[in-house]
Amino acid sequence: MPAPDPREVIREKRDGRTHDPAVLSGFIAGYVRGEVADYQASAWLMAAFLRGLDEAETQALTRALLDSGRRFDWSALGRPSADKHSTGGVGDKVSLILAPLVAACGVMVPMVSGRGLGHTGGTLDKLESIPGFKTRLSPEAMRSQLDSIGVVMVGQGPDLAPADGKLYALRDVTSTVEFEPFIVSSIVSKKIAEGAGAVVYDVKCGNGAFMKSAEAARSLARRLVATTRGLGASASAFITDMSQPLGVAAGNALEVRESVDVLRGGGPADVRELTLELSARMLELAGVAKDRAASRQNAERALASGAAWERFVAMVKAQGGDVASVERPERLPRAPVIAEVKAARAGAIGAVDTFGLGELIVSIGGGRRAKEDEIDPRVGLETLKRIADRVEKGEPLARLHLAAEDASVAARAAACFTIGDRAPQKPALVLERVE
Amino acid sequence: MPAPDPREVIREKRDGRTHDPAVLSGFIAGYVRGEVADYQASAWLMAAFLRGLDEAETQALTRALLDSGRRFDWSALGRPSADKHSTGGVGDKVSLILAPLVAACGVMVPMVSGRGLGHTGGTLDKLESIPGFKTRLSPEAMRSQLDSIGVVMVGQGPDLAPADGKLYALRDVTSTVEFEPFIVSSIVSKKIAEGAGAVVYDVKCGNGAFMKSAEAARSLARRLVATTRGLGASASAFITDMSQPLGVAAGNALEVRESVDVLRGGGPADVRELTLELSARMLELAGVAKDRAASRQNAERALASGAAWERFVAMVKAQGGDVASVERPERLPRAPVIAEVKAARAGAIGAVDTFGLGELIVSIGGGRRAKEDEIDPRVGLETLKRIADRVEKGEPLARLHLAAEDASVAARAAACFTIGDRAPQKPALVLERVE
Repeated sequence: MPAPDPREVIREKRDGRTHDPAVLSGFIAGYVRGEVADYQASAWLMAAFLRGLDEAETQALTRALLDSGRRFDWSALGRPSADKHSTGGVGDKVSLILAPLVAACGVMVPMVSGRGLGHTGGTLDKLESIPGFKTRLSPEAMRSQLDSIGVVMVGQGPDLAPADGKLYALRDVTSTVEFEPFIVSSIVSKKIAEGAGAVVYDVKCGNGAFMKSAEAARSLARRLVATTRGLGASASAFITDMSQPLGVAAGNALEVRESVDVLRGGGPADVRELTLELSARMLELAGVAKDRAASRQNAERALASGAAWERFVAMVKAQGGDVASVERPERLPRAPVIAEVKAARAGAIGAVDTFGLGELIVSIGGGRRAKEDEIDPRVGLETLKRIADRVEKGEPLARLHLAAEDASVAARAAACFTIGDRAPQKPALVLERVE
Repeated sequence: MPAPDPREVIREKRDGRTHDPAVLSGFIAGYVRGEVADYQASAWLMAAFLRGLDEAETQALTRALLDSGRRFDWSALGRPSADKHSTGGVGDKVSLILAPLVAACGVMVPMVSGRGLGHTGGTLDKLESIPGFKTRLSPEAMRSQLDSIGVVMVGQGPDLAPADGKLYALRDVTSTVEFEPFIVSSIVSKKIAEGAGAVVYDVKCGNGAFMKSAEAARSLARRLVATTRGLGASASAFITDMSQPLGVAAGNALEVRESVDVLRGGGPADVRELTLELSARMLELAGVAKDRAASRQNAERALASGAAWERFVAMVKAQGGDVASVERPERLPRAPVIAEVKAARAGAIGAVDTFGLGELIVSIGGGRRAKEDEIDPRVGLETLKRIADRVEKGEPLARLHLAAEDASVAARAAACFTIGDRAPQKPALVLERVE
């Protein structure tokens, strides 16, 4: 279909009217083909940002992004497929455990992930702290690995929803990033393009998440689910706590190490529990277990039996990673300096500035401020005390892994923990489910 | 001053905040220098369109457009200067009479005008129907002519508020044209740049104007006056009727002919009256008469004495125009076909579709749809009946001047006149004055 007159489309949204889905698709397709100029697309972005896009428009936008590139179809491999997406937080290494776990239960996971930006980590960065691990695979290699191991974890190739990349770059320089329908279309178009038949969303909520309020998280969760279903995949969402880091480890190699711990039956309880809940929902949506309870049992069994761990090792091997360094994770890159963050007083942890801790990790080299930044896989932090834990004066709150001595970092980290007299209630891990 | 971070400026307006004048000036200056990209400027345009710009912001924007080019200063010539700007309508040839008239009263008129676009005519197009008339003069030629004759009528050179041209082109393709602060900044920056010490605005209101409602016209008038004063010139505005064409003639050469009639003491009463009112206000603002009554008397005397006509002839001569064709206006370009538009019934004129008549003139070649279009100076229309006039069946309502026979035009023109049983009240010519 030829692009509609861009000025008409811009005017329609400027005046608060609703686009016909075909008109919006045509506009985005025209932008991808270069018939709609950058300056017209950005005027539309701002009009949409301020006037809003409804569910049908969000779906049309998502479909237009999807249609700009290839769409994988793994159905010939004869098993269902599913994936999980997290909106990002500090210490969220769930994907590394969940993907092989779900694969071990007979559901393929063709996971396309992103890199970290700002205070949140990225799955690709974590995986790349395993020496040799490759996150760029050809479609043929992806297919072959999915067929043999059932799981692949890669970055977004240039042929997957290329319009999303083009539009995101424009949003970034025109202050139109933080708008729910744009966020949804960007996430969902990639999940559908990668060929996931079911998607579980983990919408993080709290001071370490993009969504600070339950209301904002719920709205995003609902629209993610509705848009994904509108494009033909099953979907479900969890709203989960990000008022403190997930697990102990935050930082790339440290998180791989913690993931290995969980895959081997140990690790922090919250990481383990959240992984099992999300995995079980994927199995349920993919239809390989008769109900929620059976799905959960399957997931637990895959973890306890070592089947999930075996899949992880097989994946690391298939993607060129150094198996020895995950089997003996002390061989993973390690920071030369370890420093303790000590409690200035006795009391109970009242709150954790999770965003502050995420920013601190960026500042010591563990994350990116700009896309081009290099990251240091060795650095990071271990959170030793959690909300409602009691501490003595001088007791360690956290352990820093640094590239070089820097006394100021420990002070900044300590300032992220609020210690009070009375312990607050422990925050629930899963706040809500959005079906 | 270096350009502020464009993303911050866009975000500020997106979120409905008010710009510091220096920030807005820096942003526009950065755009002119190419440091702010088109796609950032257009995102800001849309944010401003939807969030609004207050008076201080409008003034900062206007000043930024002004500062992008040269600013004429005629004070060394030893006389005050003034100009008039009309927001455009059908049959508005006032400038052609007013400029020489005001000059004849001792106030210089350095008038920079535009071309017609859409249903409204443009002063430059009208002047160029005089064979040989040049509307591009060097600054030196302008100065010399202002010194000797006191009036010059030219087009906007590339060095006058070039940022306005750049921004207008962007507004045109991003559907951000019809926004009062942008309209005001565009108009006022040019009037200040041309060196007018006082500006009288004629804000047209009615179905042949851009402002359809008194409220919209009043708002525009107020902001034009406030912004002009903020930039150091005197200003005043009239809101005048555009519910029917001004005068009889509409069409380029036809309007020159009517202007000559008025300059020679004849012509339609409404053209004459509006010209005298606007001219008198210019003289008053320029300070060459002691009060309104004296200004009006001066203006009437300049018209009655032939002094205005003499200035007009001198200006035509100085700008290379064929004096014989204004002295004997039957020598101006004439259309080969004249057709009458007849009343289908007896009654009284209830309403005139002024926009429709303007569009009809465009359709017969007398105006432009796009900037590049050529116009035919010969064609146009004479409105013979006005609102509240009584007509007999078959009596002429209008006379068409066409390049070729076309029976359908008369029918379309007739449809622009509503004939009823009862005559409505005649619309007032001047609806309001905004001081």
